[in-house]
Amino acid sequence: MGLTIGVDIGGTKIAAGVVDEEGTIRETCKVPTPPTAEGVVDAIADAVRTVSSSHQVEAVGIGAAGYVDDKRATVLFAPNINWRHEALKDKVEQRVGLPVVVENDANAAAWGEYRFGAGQGHEDVICITLGTGLGGGIIIGNKLRRGRFGVAGEFGHIRVVPDGLLCGCGSQGCWEQYASGRALVRYARQRAVATPDNAAILLGLGDGTPDSIEGKHVSEAARQGDPVAIDSFRELARWAGAGLADLASLFDPGAFIVGGGVSDEGDLVLEPIRKSFRRWLVGGQYRPHAQVLAAQLGGKAGLVGAADLARQG
Amino acid sequence: MGLTIGVDIGGTKIAAGVVDEEGTIRETCKVPTPPTAEGVVDAIADAVRTVSSSHQVEAVGIGAAGYVDDKRATVLFAPNINWRHEALKDKVEQRVGLPVVVENDANAAAWGEYRFGAGQGHEDVICITLGTGLGGGIIIGNKLRRGRFGVAGEFGHIRVVPDGLLCGCGSQGCWEQYASGRALVRYARQRAVATPDNAAILLGLGDGTPDSIEGKHVSEAARQGDPVAIDSFRELARWAGAGLADLASLFDPGAFIVGGGVSDEGDLVLEPIRKSFRRWLVGGQYRPHAQVLAAQLGGKAGLVGAADLARQG
Amino acid sequence: MGLTIGVDIGGTKIAAGVVDEEGTIRETCKVPTPPTAEGVVDAIADAVRTVSSSHQVEAVGIGAAGYVDDKRATVLFAPNINWRHEALKDKVEQRVGLPVVVENDANAAAWGEYRFGAGQGHEDVICITLGTGLGGGIIIGNKLRRGRFGVAGEFGHIRVVPDGLLCGCGSQGCWEQYASGRALVRYARQRAVATPDNAAILLGLGDGTPDSIEGKHVSEAARQGDPVAIDSFRELARWAGAGLADLASLFDPGAFIVGGGVSDEGDLVLEPIRKSFRRWLVGGQYRPHAQVLAAQLGGKAGLVGAADLARQG
Amino acid sequence: MGLTIGVDIGGTKIAAGVVDEEGTIRETCKVPTPPTAEGVVDAIADAVRTVSSSHQVEAVGIGAAGYVDDKRATVLFAPNINWRHEALKDKVEQRVGLPVVVENDANAAAWGEYRFGAGQGHEDVICITLGTGLGGGIIIGNKLRRGRFGVAGEFGHIRVVPDGLLCGCGSQGCWEQYASGRALVRYARQRAVATPDNAAILLGLGDGTPDSIEGKHVSEAARQGDPVAIDSFRELARWAGAGLADLASLFDPGAFIVGGGVSDEGDLVLEPIRKSFRRWLVGGQYRPHAQVLAAQLGGKAGLVGAADLARQG
Repeated sequence: MGLTIGVDIGGTKIAAGVVDEEGTIRETCKVPTPPTAEGVVDAIADAVRTVSSSHQVEAVGIGAAGYVDDKRATVLFAPNINWRHEALKDKVEQRVGLPVVVENDANAAAWGEYRFGAGQGHEDVICITLGTGLGGGIIIGNKLRRGRFGVAGEFGHIRVVPDGLLCGCGSQGCWEQYASGRALVRYARQRAVATPDNAAILLGLGDGTPDSIEGKHVSEAARQGDPVAIDSFRELARWAGAGLADLASLFDPGAFIVGGGVSDEGDLVLEPIRKSFRRWLVGGQYRPHAQVLAAQLGGKAGLVGAADLARQG
Repeated sequence: MGLTIGVDIGGTKIAAGVVDEEGTIRETCKVPTPPTAEGVVDAIADAVRTVSSSHQVEAVGIGAAGYVDDKRATVLFAPNINWRHEALKDKVEQRVGLPVVVENDANAAAWGEYRFGAGQGHEDVICITLGTGLGGGIIIGNKLRRGRFGVAGEFGHIRVVPDGLLCGCGSQGCWEQYASGRALVRYARQRAVATPDNAAILLGLGDGTPDSIEGKHVSEAARQGDPVAIDSFRELARWAGAGLADLASLFDPGAFIVGGGVSDEGDLVLEPIRKSFRRWLVGGQYRPHAQVLAAQLGGKAGLVGAADLARQG
Repeated sequence: MGLTIGVDIGGTKIAAGVVDEEGTIRETCKVPTPPTAEGVVDAIADAVRTVSSSHQVEAVGIGAAGYVDDKRATVLFAPNINWRHEALKDKVEQRVGLPVVVENDANAAAWGEYRFGAGQGHEDVICITLGTGLGGGIIIGNKLRRGRFGVAGEFGHIRVVPDGLLCGCGSQGCWEQYASGRALVRYARQRAVATPDNAAILLGLGDGTPDSIEGKHVSEAARQGDPVAIDSFRELARWAGAGLADLASLFDPGAFIVGGGVSDEGDLVLEPIRKSFRRWLVGGQYRPHAQVLAAQLGGKAGLVGAADLARQG
Repeated sequence: MGLTIGVDIGGTKIAAGVVDEEGTIRETCKVPTPPTAEGVVDAIADAVRTVSSSHQVEAVGIGAAGYVDDKRATVLFAPNINWRHEALKDKVEQRVGLPVVVENDANAAAWGEYRFGAGQGHEDVICITLGTGLGGGIIIGNKLRRGRFGVAGEFGHIRVVPDGLLCGCGSQGCWEQYASGRALVRYARQRAVATPDNAAILLGLGDGTPDSIEGKHVSEAARQGDPVAIDSFRELARWAGAGLADLASLFDPGAFIVGGGVSDEGDLVLEPIRKSFRRWLVGGQYRPHAQVLAAQLGGKAGLVGAADLARQG
């Protein structure tokens, strides 16, 4: 099979791209994400038609946040769009006349990294995406593992603190409350309230109040040596690394790939994560250690991965 | 392939058995577990020779506690026997003249249940063994998943309480400190100290002191309605069920199988575990639920599973 | 000294009452709580003038939520009213021409119970108030203990879960997030989502959805035997009792008094709290146990206590 | 009253000293701690007779680990000596012919610091002793507060981690498991196992194995810049400071005094504790902050305090 299309549904933009067998994006198009559930379906179809007009494409892969069923056809539940048992595959196929597969967006990104990014050459890879929340995907034996019902790899919602922070999912103590972009900002704000003297750089990047601190400020301030920003990254890394150690006990992969916006900071965040991983890895002196790698495809991993999953059929 | 031999290395006994393609044990033999590492190898060989003398057997599968490498040949680390990088496959093959595969004992038990027990008919199964500690095995896509380096499925050592109880593995807050036979006894003793009036039956089964309480007493007392014993099972089930919910977020299997000595109590412990699992399952209203099944093979699962893994080659 | 006035500033009403030396309220008046900080001061003065017109009163005691300074004059910080370093004593004295003392409302309630309620006859008493949040007061050696700076007894904000639930105070894992009326409702809603079959009575008291569950429903449903409601009270009691055990390690009082709306349920909540207290009391077999008593004055404790503190000068 | 004797019962030595009204020790004597309960009583009497032979002394104060009753006469329970309801006051009075008061050793040390050490000039002081375990004492309104039954101030056994580390007291998650000399050593050993490269200095001070690490090594290595040793002190300080913040919510003292062997390191440990205290202090921006002071009397605080308590009668 030759060219396929990958679609990435974001909170503000829907991106569609024509991708070749090497994972290279030949053409892309972005449209705003409509506010209604049905509008999103139409926008996906429009974007697909736009990019496919000048290419011979054979299939479409769509990455969507939420639970996708085991047939890769129906979105069981989407956290941000009002989709409940939405037959997305059928609806888009009817509109664009191409075979469609639907995949969880973090699964698609994991597959993209495995095929064309940091995971190349590995058979068993676990990807985690530290974005606003925490997602992930599982590759075992060179296959994406989706679970019996399609909803495996929901790493962000394992419980790491009993009776811990409330999560949007309704549970408490979920990993993504402690290791994600949102967590990073919370760490920085709390510390800036308690010890403003140590957050002078950080506070100066916003309007001077802790509430104005955003993720980009924490990154910038950390690079400038702000103690509170550095400590916030360290706290994030403590939780991220400890969670990877748990995943190593369970999956024992050859490599972990850490992606998402937080990982854009590279070794600023990767090195503390590696240190924490070694600290908490059970039996570390008796077993080979998985590598902890930075993702390579950035924000394109989901689109490229979805396109490739469509190619695989 | 016809008959194979399964070997189960326990703390006090080594059992070897001839097993057929239906998972039926044709003959068994037990020998005491020797105190030295080399003695165990010899005892395994002796037991294999004993049961193979009157059968035409084609291979040997050995289930051993600890880390086994990805080639299923070397025990990287055994917690109870002084084995470090022990070339068990080679040593036993030299002694008995049959092909040997070595497998983690909980993996072997999981495979036994998947093939001949509660897991029949499922493609994706997670087994947990609530014995003295907590072990487990992963079947995905009808294959035992061992990880890149052979040490996947160490469920007992995921961290469920940060800064929690010390574990024999050197880490803290490991799941097996909260959901295992040893944990059950600890719950019962602590409660019997604090509220002896509610533990009259339980204390009466030992010598009257909390320290004399053993696992069998807790089971018996719970059946007789002892409040402390019932509460101890409930506490165990809270942790077991919450952990299964985490595993559902990660693996999304079709079924969980709960084995090990604690599960011998059947619904006394299975029902509270199911209740706790439903309580903590993330997104439970939007997704199909895995079944939570009692293991069917009891203490024979490891031997039968090891024999079958040897048959599969 | 004869009659004094107690003032209780609530979220919706300000109550003033004339109280005699026996703790009997002779006359009361209630006015709505104004929306502005200055308006509240005027409303207090109005209420005081109303009830004092037909009585010979000698002083005024005001109970206010928040931090009150060591001179019992200034509200350093009020969570619900926009008071920061508010010179409440001076302002009210100027308006009403009587000596005024300002006290934290939970301290006032504790004093009321100590003098005229459940604490009579004890020299060392710890009161906790399980209302929307969790407050308290400390009596040691027959004196209210306010701390060096006036802000002792903030029981609700000790950390009982590291990295736990966010609290309105900006910290995490505060006791009042786990033991309070608000916590009770959260427990009930979470359980009703996860196991609606066990919450049929409870859900029937609201509009059928978990979000409609309120505190009064949980109490009513528990009395009718609803499993989720009973379990929610038990969870609250687990945390309340464990916290009292900590306070016993610190203060070793002769009695604990449990007040606030949650305690109106009497033994429905008191008995599980006592059980949990015994469970967690350190060294319980070697030391006398504090009594755990239900408060006797209900919602009047704060007003009566504030009046009596004014009498003591 | 003029001279009195203070007695400090340690695990290996019993020290008795003649102390004047200024808290100056005039003469001391040390004897080995006998192995039997009755032997300890005799040894105390011997030591008292020795130091009193050349001084006119008027009373004896004894500091003992464990629970002491409200009459300061009976040791209800001692963790290290086999005393259960031991009438220590009577027994020693009969032997030495002087009035005796018995006090918990951490209470005695707190009183010593309050009267002659870091607490001078304060009315409300909380002392914590970071020794092998964690003890403390409460001074409110210039009086030592012992609780209704004599066992207040057991700071080491408040629960800071639900389901946390087992404690010698039988409970779990006690503060002293996270903030004490023993905890410091555990932190260092765990980190040295996980990341030996960062513990080169520390491991070099022992025999090269993590198990050989002792408290003195951690202090020395931290002064030499060993990353694991510094990180271990930081972890201790995180827990110590967070606990002090809780005590501030409860007691709101004017000052905290931190004593015990761990505090001998001065600002190496005090500064991180202060930082953690500020980080976790609830409402820190709205209230005056207690000072966090280093103890001044070192290991003599208990003896001097006991002598002074005897003087006060």
